[in-house]
This record gives sequence, C-alpha cells and structure tokens, in this order.
Amino acid sequence: MNGGPVRLHAELEKRFVEIVGEKYALRLSEEIDPFVTEPRGLFGGVTSLVLRPGSVEEVSRILSLATETGTPIVPQGGNTGLVGGQMPDQSGGEVILSLSRLNRIREIDLESNTATVEAGVILEVLQKAADEQDRLFPLALASQGSCQIGGNLSSNAGGIGALAYGTARDLCLGVEVVLPTGEVLDDLRKLKKDNTGYDLKNLFVGGEGTLGVITAAVVKLYPKPRGRVMAWAGLGSPEDALKLLHMAGSAAGSELTAFELMHRRPLDFVLAHVPGAKPPLEGEHEWHVLMEISSGRSEEEASATMEAVLGEAFETERVADAVIAQNEGQAAELRHLRESMSEAQKPEGGSIKHDISVPVAAIPTFIAEAEAAIQEIVPGCRPVCFGHMGDGNLHYNVTQPEGMDKGAYLEHYRAMNAKVHAIVRRLGGSFSAEHGIGRLKREELIATQPPVATELMRRIKRAFDPAGIMNPGKVI
Amino acid sequence: MNGGPVRLHAELEKRFVEIVGEKYALRLSEEIDPFVTEPRGLFGGVTSLVLRPGSVEEVSRILSLATETGTPIVPQGGNTGLVGGQMPDQSGGEVILSLSRLNRIREIDLESNTATVEAGVILEVLQKAADEQDRLFPLALASQGSCQIGGNLSSNAGGIGALAYGTARDLCLGVEVVLPTGEVLDDLRKLKKDNTGYDLKNLFVGGEGTLGVITAAVVKLYPKPRGRVMAWAGLGSPEDALKLLHMAGSAAGSELTAFELMHRRPLDFVLAHVPGAKPPLEGEHEWHVLMEISSGRSEEEASATMEAVLGEAFETERVADAVIAQNEGQAAELRHLRESMSEAQKPEGGSIKHDISVPVAAIPTFIAEAEAAIQEIVPGCRPVCFGHMGDGNLHYNVTQPEGMDKGAYLEHYRAMNAKVHAIVRRLGGSFSAEHGIGRLKREELIATQPPVATELMRRIKRAFDPAGIMNPGKVI
Repeated sequence: MNGGPVRLHAELEKRFVEIVGEKYALRLSEEIDPFVTEPRGLFGGVTSLVLRPGSVEEVSRILSLATETGTPIVPQGGNTGLVGGQMPDQSGGEVILSLSRLNRIREIDLESNTATVEAGVILEVLQKAADEQDRLFPLALASQGSCQIGGNLSSNAGGIGALAYGTARDLCLGVEVVLPTGEVLDDLRKLKKDNTGYDLKNLFVGGEGTLGVITAAVVKLYPKPRGRVMAWAGLGSPEDALKLLHMAGSAAGSELTAFELMHRRPLDFVLAHVPGAKPPLEGEHEWHVLMEISSGRSEEEASATMEAVLGEAFETERVADAVIAQNEGQAAELRHLRESMSEAQKPEGGSIKHDISVPVAAIPTFIAEAEAAIQEIVPGCRPVCFGHMGDGNLHYNVTQPEGMDKGAYLEHYRAMNAKVHAIVRRLGGSFSAEHGIGRLKREELIATQPPVATELMRRIKRAFDPAGIMNPGKVI
Repeated sequence: MNGGPVRLHAELEKRFVEIVGEKYALRLSEEIDPFVTEPRGLFGGVTSLVLRPGSVEEVSRILSLATETGTPIVPQGGNTGLVGGQMPDQSGGEVILSLSRLNRIREIDLESNTATVEAGVILEVLQKAADEQDRLFPLALASQGSCQIGGNLSSNAGGIGALAYGTARDLCLGVEVVLPTGEVLDDLRKLKKDNTGYDLKNLFVGGEGTLGVITAAVVKLYPKPRGRVMAWAGLGSPEDALKLLHMAGSAAGSELTAFELMHRRPLDFVLAHVPGAKPPLEGEHEWHVLMEISSGRSEEEASATMEAVLGEAFETERVADAVIAQNEGQAAELRHLRESMSEAQKPEGGSIKHDISVPVAAIPTFIAEAEAAIQEIVPGCRPVCFGHMGDGNLHYNVTQPEGMDKGAYLEHYRAMNAKVHAIVRRLGGSFSAEHGIGRLKREELIATQPPVATELMRRIKRAFDPAGIMNPGKVI
C-alpha cells in the first residue's frame, strides 16, 4: 500500500454508522486512540472507525454488512489482551467492533447457579454481582477491573482460580454468537450435560474473534466458600515447591484454590518499585509460594488444613519459613504482591516474555533448562519467573541485564523465544498457555505445530468465515 | 438396494485384510455377530468385515485405504452405546473398525496426575490401574466392565461422577486421532492450560467417530479421597430433592460426589426383579436420593458433613427417612440398587426412553409436565424416572401400562418422544444429555436444532471428512 492508511469508502462508512447511530460511531482520532493503544505498546493499530453497537441486532447488521462488502472486522472487549488479538492492522481498513455497550447481566439464576451475561460486562462487575448473591464467579485476573467477559471467553482466559475451577472455557455453559453472515446462534443453555452434535461452543471460546462474535454467555457460579485461608511460604527450590504442591493437593483436594510459584527476583522488583509493598517473610528465600485453601464449611476448617499442610512441609524440610494471613487485609496484601509482578518489571527495562505451560512435574526441569538457555543468548539477563504452578503455567519473562540498552536487548526477542519454546516443546508443553495466539504468536504457531493441525484449523476458519472478514491475521 | 446385503469387492476386502492380518480380520458370521448386536436390540447392523488393528499405524493404513476407495468405516469400542452410533447400516458395505486391541495403558504419571491410555482400554481396567496407584479416575458408568475409553470419549460419556468431576470431555487433556486420510494428529498433551489455536480436541471428543478415530488420550487422575460416605434418603417430592441438593452443595461444595434422584417405581422394579435386592429404607417413600460425600482428609470428616446435611434436611422436613452406609459393603448395596434400574425395567415390558437434561432448578417442573403429557398419549403408562439430578440429567423412561401389548405400546415411541422433548426444549434443556445422537436421534437433531447450527456442523463434517467415509448416517 502507498500513501499511508486508508479510510473506508465514505458511502460504506455511512452504512456502518447508520446501524449504530452517529453517537456510537467513533471517527475522531482522539476518540479512537484508546481502542488502538494496547497495554504493552507492541501492536499499534490503525482504524478510521470504531463501532459501539448497543444490541445483538446491531452486531448482526454490522457483520452482515461486513460480509456483503468484504470489510474486515476486529472485535474488541476491554482491550487488555497481551497478544494483539484485539488490534487492527496498520492498513486503516479494518473496523473495530467494540462490545462494551453490551454490558447487561441478563440473569443470575440462584437455583441453577448460573449467570447469563453480555460480552461487554466487566469481569469485576460480574464477580461483585455474584458475591452479592452469596455466589462465587471464580475467574480472577490482574486486569479484572477492565477486561470483559467476551474477551475472557474469546481468549479462554486463565488466572489464579483456574487451578480449582478451570479456565474461562470450563466456566462457560452456553454462548450466543453472531456469525460472520449476521446470523445469530443462540446456544445460551444452562446445561451441565448436552451431547447434541459437535461442540460448537468450544470453537468460539478460545477462537479469538476469528470465527464469530460472542455477544453473551451462560457461565457457572459456585457456592461461596465459607472459609478461605492464604499463606506465603519461602522455599529453596522449584523441587520443594512441587513437593509442597503434592502435599497441599493431597490434603485439600479441590479445596486448594491457588498455588502460585514465584522466584525471588519478581518479589524483589515489587518491593523496590511498588509503593507500600512489604516483604512477606523475614529472611531471604530463593523461591516463594502463595497458596490458598478454601472450605465449603468454615474458616476454621480451612485454617486447620493449611496448618496441617505447612506442618508436614516443615517436618519434611520442604518449606523454610511461612506466614498465614490472619485476616482479609493481610490476605489482600499477599495477593497484591503476586498481582503486582507484571507491572513491577517495567522499571527494570526491556522484558522478553513467555507464557508457557508444561506438565506440572516438568516445572523444575523447565526452569533449570530455560535459565541455561537464556544465559547463552544474553549473558547477565535476569529471569523473572512466576506463575500458576498448579496448572503448570509460568510467566517466564526475562528482564534485560542491568545497564544494557533496551533496544539492543529486545533484538534478541525472537531468538530467546525460539530457545525457550524449543525446551517447552521437548517437555510436551505449550508456548501459549493462557494469553492466546493473536498476532504475536501466529507465525510461530504455524511454524511449529503439526501441519495437519494447521490444515484442520484453516478448514474450520474457511467453514465458519468464508468471506474472511473476522479478525484477519489472527490465530491462523 | 435389491437382493440383500452386499459384500465388499473381493479385491478390496483383501487389501483391508492384509493390513491387520488374517487372524484379526473377522469374516465369519459367528465371529461378526457380537459386533452387530447391541444392548437394546434396536439397531441391527450388517457387515461382512470387522477389522481389529493392533497399532495406530494399522488404523492409519485402514483409513487411508478407506478414503482412497470410498469405503465407509464404523469405529467401535465396547459396543455398549445406546443410540446406535457404533452400528453399521443394513447395506453390508460398511466395515467395522474395532479398537479393542489398542488396549495398552501407555503411562500413568503420578507427578502430573495423568494417564495416557489407548482407545481400547476398558473403563474398569483404567479405574483399577489408577486405584492401585492411589489415584482416582472418576468416570463411572453402569457399563464400565465392558465399555472402552475411546467410546467414552467419542460419546462424551457422563455417569454418576460427572457431578463433581465432569463428563468424559472434562477429564480429557489430549488426544491422538487418526484422520480420515490416515494422517495422525498427535495432541497427547498433559496440559491444563493450552491456548494454541482452535480447540480441535473437543470436536473429536463427542464427535461419535464421524470426524476421525481417537486412538489414545491423556486423561486426568485425581487424588483418591481418603473418606467417602454414601447415604440413601426417602423424600416426598422432587422439590424436596432440589432443596436437599442445595443443602448438600452448600455444605460439601465440590466434595458432593454423587446426587442421584429416583422415583419409587424404578426402585420397586429393582426390588421385584433383581435377586437379593433389599429395600434401603423401612417405610414407603415417593422419591429417593442416593448421595455421596467425599473428603480429601478423612472418613470422619466425610461422615460429619453427611450428618450435618441430613440433620438440616430432617429439621426442615425435606427428608422423611435416611440411612448412612456403615461400610463399603453397604455402600456397594446402595449403589447396586441405583445401577440396576436400567436392567430392572425390562421384565415390565416395552419402554420408551428419554435421556434429557434441563437446568437443575427446572427438574420438578419437568417431572410434573412430562407426567401429564405422557398420560395423555398412553393412559396408564408408567414413568420410570431416575438419574443424575445434580447435573439436571434424568433418564425419563416410560414403561408400558400393565397388560398392554408391547408392540402396540412402542408404536407411540416417536409421539411420546416428541411431547417430552418439546417440554425439554421449552425449559431450555437437551434431548440428548449424555448418550449422544448416533443413529437414533439424528433426524430429531436436524429437525429441532437451529438450522444455522446444523449448517455449521455439516461444514465441520465436510472440512474433516470430505470423502464422507467416517461413520456415515450418524450425528449429522
């Protein structure tokens, strides 16, 4: 293309605008900017039009017109995604479809323990609505104050609660989807069992908006635990953490509701850069674990289980020191330390990121092999390793050596990714555990997955979106 | 077709036989009979060839040849399916592919809590292998002594344990699939989190062998509960059972591992027809519940929770009488009463069956409306209602009136199905909760689901199996 970004043809633009009305068709760059600027700043996109439909009917008309005219559509939720799935390309010819006005909680059904929510409902809003009804919606992410359910489902979000309650996919019972043709697939069922043909739902969940637009979903709610106890432990090694995980899993079973592993370094970064952050333990420890146990019966029972687990861990010398939060305030402080780890890396310079999973048992091997590999590429680089150990999922981010030029460091991004991901593959893991493929990992997906899988995914894409208008250039 | 069933062309038959060897290519009718006779006797099929491959490589060569020559293939596991999904048609031209020789447990990984098993492993064999390693594989069905994992996954089997642990779909982490072309998709991952593109796995799981052949899978194992307590309660109504379910769910959370609702009539049938069956309670009760609570910590804890639940239920007069099994023998007796209910209907004559699910809260409404509807069709017919209430899933079977001619009764099969399924649809339910579509419900699926869903399923079928050789006439 020459001469910079294109605008839509004026006549076409007018037809799209008419669907949502002038007020909800954003065309000024200051209005558009927040939709094309994403948290990492890696994926600047360009568009001349952001549509904010207020009903499923309007979404349907937008997609129908898009298919008719071959106009590419980029669905967007809270714009918190980390792989560029919600960003238009540089052409200017892609239209952003924001789901933020579809933000009604249509129903909370206390008998069936379900909520029927529209795509634009902010995660924290749903958490609070469930809480007010004495229920738990267990999906919990650092971005929960701004991310939206539609995006959570489209990217199959994970987070801390996935250990006990599963990912967004596991929490979803039914979906309402607008297909690229504008047809509406209403599959908003509240059923735990439904074997009626192929599982369409799980293609849209995790489909990153490339097969259709999720406009609403039925999600599971849970009884609110009557007791929750959080503890922070200092340990010597990932092997010790693995043993602790088994002790906790064995004693608490499905009541083990969080098990986060953190290296010393991300904690140091938090203590250095987050105002008010205090060390959770007195001594120095190479590794840390944040662990939560919930009880359906009582606080006392959760505490007793936690004490039994830590007692066994001390006796077997797997844990060097530990503290149990004595109240909700202390628990919130511990959780805040963990949740600040992504942000706290920024002041330390460039970061090369990996969102990987391996079989849980392979976590110590992965950490040892990855450390060796990255030091060969950039000696002195600083691994910032933390994540959802109970799920085998680590955010293995690597901060630049102190004093190195950021740009020079980031030139090693792909080389380091390649080395780390090769280790992941050898261990039977995934190079995209919970953040998705989006734009960031598309080439690598195609280059590394079995060609037969790529071919099947391409056929699915063509079967669902023959006009190729849905979020082009993402996933596959 | 004229002149009865066809045989394969001799030359083609020879090519198939060569792949598995003479010994494992069954061509005599006495050898073939067990593969074309199914438990209900509803779906007699005809074939001239049953292939029993001994390796994934042989499965691959069979499907490759089938695609090359347009030969329809019917994959079969333990031949326990209830909807005819494993049966060839009457033409004689379809070849049965039995997975029974792929029966190795390739690995039990205690650190990752996974088992990697071939399709032909019998469910009970896997349960026992897990148990010997102090683990639980929670899928449990009445047919577990003969059904196979490959069939369980292909039909997304449910069963009693689904309440706490999910259906076969939820228990499956990865699959190895031979595609219709013979290509092998190796996705045998042990990962709890993996967001790398579209969810192919969940198309094969529940795909009833129409998209490819699952040859192996990675399934989840769980820590074995240290205590399990079973109780039987007599109640006045489904409404009381719903209240009891909420009390149990609230007190036990995910430790509520079974909640089965049964009407008086199926229990009466068991007591009349199953040798040695004894009434679980002394008095007469219109409704019954079988309930299990498990504890990760101790038998005492499970007992205490069960006693608390029943105590609350007695106080609020939701339960009229109850017994707690005092040992494993008593628990097995209670379980046996429930598991005999399918068989015990047979001596009572013709049965019109429904495998339905509705939102849990709608169970009492469904039972009341269905009873009224069926009595209009055949006055005096006897509803035999039992099932997995915790999942909203009932086996709503309707036995003929006493003394009526069986054939005359069964002529009402479709009319009664239509009435009952209309109620299910109105309540937002599913007319195929856990048994699948197979041959039995294909027409009804196509007639009643939204046309856009049928169209998407057909496109998926064409995308995966363009030659149309995989289990034709099933699902879609």
